[in-house]
Amino acid sequence: MTDHSLSGITAAKGFLAAGIHCGIKREKKDLALVVSEVPAVCAGVFTRNKVAAACVEVDKAQLAASPSVRAIIVNSGNANACTGDQGMADAWEMIDATAAALRFDRKEILVSSTGVIGRAMPMEKLRSGIAAIAPTVSGDGHEAAAEAIMTTDTFSKEYAVEVMVQGVPVRIGGMSKGSGMIAPNMATMLAFITTDVAISLRLLQVAVKRATDLSFNRITVDGDTSTNDMAIVMANGEAHNAQLTSVDDPGYREFFDGLVEVFVKLSKLIVLDGEGATKFVEICVKGVATEEDAEKAARSIANSNLVKTAIHGEDANWGRILAAVGYSGIDFDPSKTEIFFGDVAILKQNYGIDFSEEDALVVLKKKEISITVDLHQGDQSAVFWTCDLSKEYITINANYRT
Amino acid sequence: MTDHSLSGITAAKGFLAAGIHCGIKREKKDLALVVSEVPAVCAGVFTRNKVAAACVEVDKAQLAASPSVRAIIVNSGNANACTGDQGMADAWEMIDATAAALRFDRKEILVSSTGVIGRAMPMEKLRSGIAAIAPTVSGDGHEAAAEAIMTTDTFSKEYAVEVMVQGVPVRIGGMSKGSGMIAPNMATMLAFITTDVAISLRLLQVAVKRATDLSFNRITVDGDTSTNDMAIVMANGEAHNAQLTSVDDPGYREFFDGLVEVFVKLSKLIVLDGEGATKFVEICVKGVATEEDAEKAARSIANSNLVKTAIHGEDANWGRILAAVGYSGIDFDPSKTEIFFGDVAILKQNYGIDFSEEDALVVLKKKEISITVDLHQGDQSAVFWTCDLSKEYITINANYRT
Repeated sequence: MTDHSLSGITAAKGFLAAGIHCGIKREKKDLALVVSEVPAVCAGVFTRNKVAAACVEVDKAQLAASPSVRAIIVNSGNANACTGDQGMADAWEMIDATAAALRFDRKEILVSSTGVIGRAMPMEKLRSGIAAIAPTVSGDGHEAAAEAIMTTDTFSKEYAVEVMVQGVPVRIGGMSKGSGMIAPNMATMLAFITTDVAISLRLLQVAVKRATDLSFNRITVDGDTSTNDMAIVMANGEAHNAQLTSVDDPGYREFFDGLVEVFVKLSKLIVLDGEGATKFVEICVKGVATEEDAEKAARSIANSNLVKTAIHGEDANWGRILAAVGYSGIDFDPSKTEIFFGDVAILKQNYGIDFSEEDALVVLKKKEISITVDLHQGDQSAVFWTCDLSKEYITINANYRT
Repeated sequence: MTDHSLSGITAAKGFLAAGIHCGIKREKKDLALVVSEVPAVCAGVFTRNKVAAACVEVDKAQLAASPSVRAIIVNSGNANACTGDQGMADAWEMIDATAAALRFDRKEILVSSTGVIGRAMPMEKLRSGIAAIAPTVSGDGHEAAAEAIMTTDTFSKEYAVEVMVQGVPVRIGGMSKGSGMIAPNMATMLAFITTDVAISLRLLQVAVKRATDLSFNRITVDGDTSTNDMAIVMANGEAHNAQLTSVDDPGYREFFDGLVEVFVKLSKLIVLDGEGATKFVEICVKGVATEEDAEKAARSIANSNLVKTAIHGEDANWGRILAAVGYSGIDFDPSKTEIFFGDVAILKQNYGIDFSEEDALVVLKKKEISITVDLHQGDQSAVFWTCDLSKEYITINANYRT
């Protein structure tokens, strides 16, 4: 049951948020705070990049020491990455300042940063900013918070759903930001999700891991992660369902499907806001022996500059798609492969390519394009989301620092 | 001993070549033939793409059956890829036609194709073309041959050297073509090299494999190969040195160094002709525990769209370089890493970034840029070559088919 009028990170019971301008950026909001009125169990996934920002190191340590979380403080404008010992000290100070302002234990706070890397954090602005934002959190703060975590994003990204768990309404809501960079590399992707479901820590961790594999890791921000990537989920139990502790519990499937819906929506919004993107592309690889191979093939297509430029040029270039599967590392028989743009078969088995260029163009002219590759080798599949590669992408990224 | 007046694929004794227009392309040369006056041992490396063109399958079978080769027939304009059983039959027919025209055994012929994929080979044009080109091969044919293998290349690519092996002059010469695509994917890279050295098949195979790893595989055409990639070396023994059979033989080092010089030059020419490229970039990663890790890190930097667009924008964005090493999969300590643009240290150890933007810009304004990354973790290194990513790249690739 999806209710689109629900409100982002504060949709679930007992969650408050705020977003303000504290001076890291020139004018725009740059500091967000999310608070749970009661302690919440918390699970997170973090960048695998060896060059991890201070907030990533600090949050991993925090969650390992205590998975009970009350608040997340997030700044944009400065990533606090590649900042050495001083950066670590600054991240801890942000936690302490937030704990003091909210009168929580420092163990209950997480910190997140996004923006330019290699610059010292403007701690004076953050100190006064944290003191100023703490009293302003409210049940209406979702929009301001979602705005405050943006960097090169052109719109703020929020979503929420309500699902029934054992007859009890449970809400799941969140916000995300991307650099827009979909072809991976250094796009910082942040996502914060809150839910009032009652769930054990262990089961929440399982759900978040699997939902991430089906969403944020399907926009190629996994293998090629940025220094600051993270997705954090807080569950505070305020829906008062009987606590979920096993994947077999009644209501878990409903909760999990809702969680995946929110994750996927927040992922798609990142792709939609891709730097220079003019088209949104869904890539489905099916008929594969294993989901792992399906994902490899879909990732390979989604990351191909040649495929992405062809889509930008509205060119039904099936050869580049087939070749991208060919170098993905999976085993398959190219002569059995079929490729569809929307419903139009542009490659049939045994290299049949007598498709109508006109029909293909009708699909390619659209803003949202679906590409299906059927390997006819099994019954597993994987979906990936990406965008086209345009000249605007070059313009945006050629002079990002200055 | 390098003599730049030497002439490409016909520099070595006993090799003849020709290039003609046979009608696959509208006007430009599209058929090349390389002939050895005496049987030559032959070693080749081929695309690892699962979607391999007919010529790749045929040549692998030919070399497995008989490594003694007299001629290579190469066409441009049609890749004979994704063409199924008919494509295989056409590739074999090209071999038979060449054998008949030259009066060689069909076992002694290799075939190579490059161009558009998925289209049936215009066999009538090829039949008459092969009959026409065979009598025209000569010791001066290198230039015409190098032109005839071009597709989107903007200039033909040739190089040759002479080295002394046991007091005997040995020549190594060749030609190459790229699609210009350096960010990998579907750029077909072809290279044909001839040498008059006397060498055993086994040792030639070892030399070609290692030289490829240091050259063609350092412009990222390896893991992400096209359907048609190949590099073929023929050695006919006409220099009459004492046959090289072991890496420890006197003169082997000289021959190998010459072979690497030719391979590297032909590789660099492909990068220089990169689609839309405005800058040539040499990336050296050093201070690494293993060469394998150094190569991984260098490849990751060379493939990063963000690094390549930053270089296009002449932006000293060390963060993107460091992050690309971070997600390359190797283990290292980012705080120990140093990054240089030319001689300018833009990242010192412990995240020291007090470099002069002016000095960095002097380096970045150049057409040829060298980037050195020192991990301070060991004594191994690897060099990669790439180019910047420009808007022109998008223009070229958005509508390649039409």
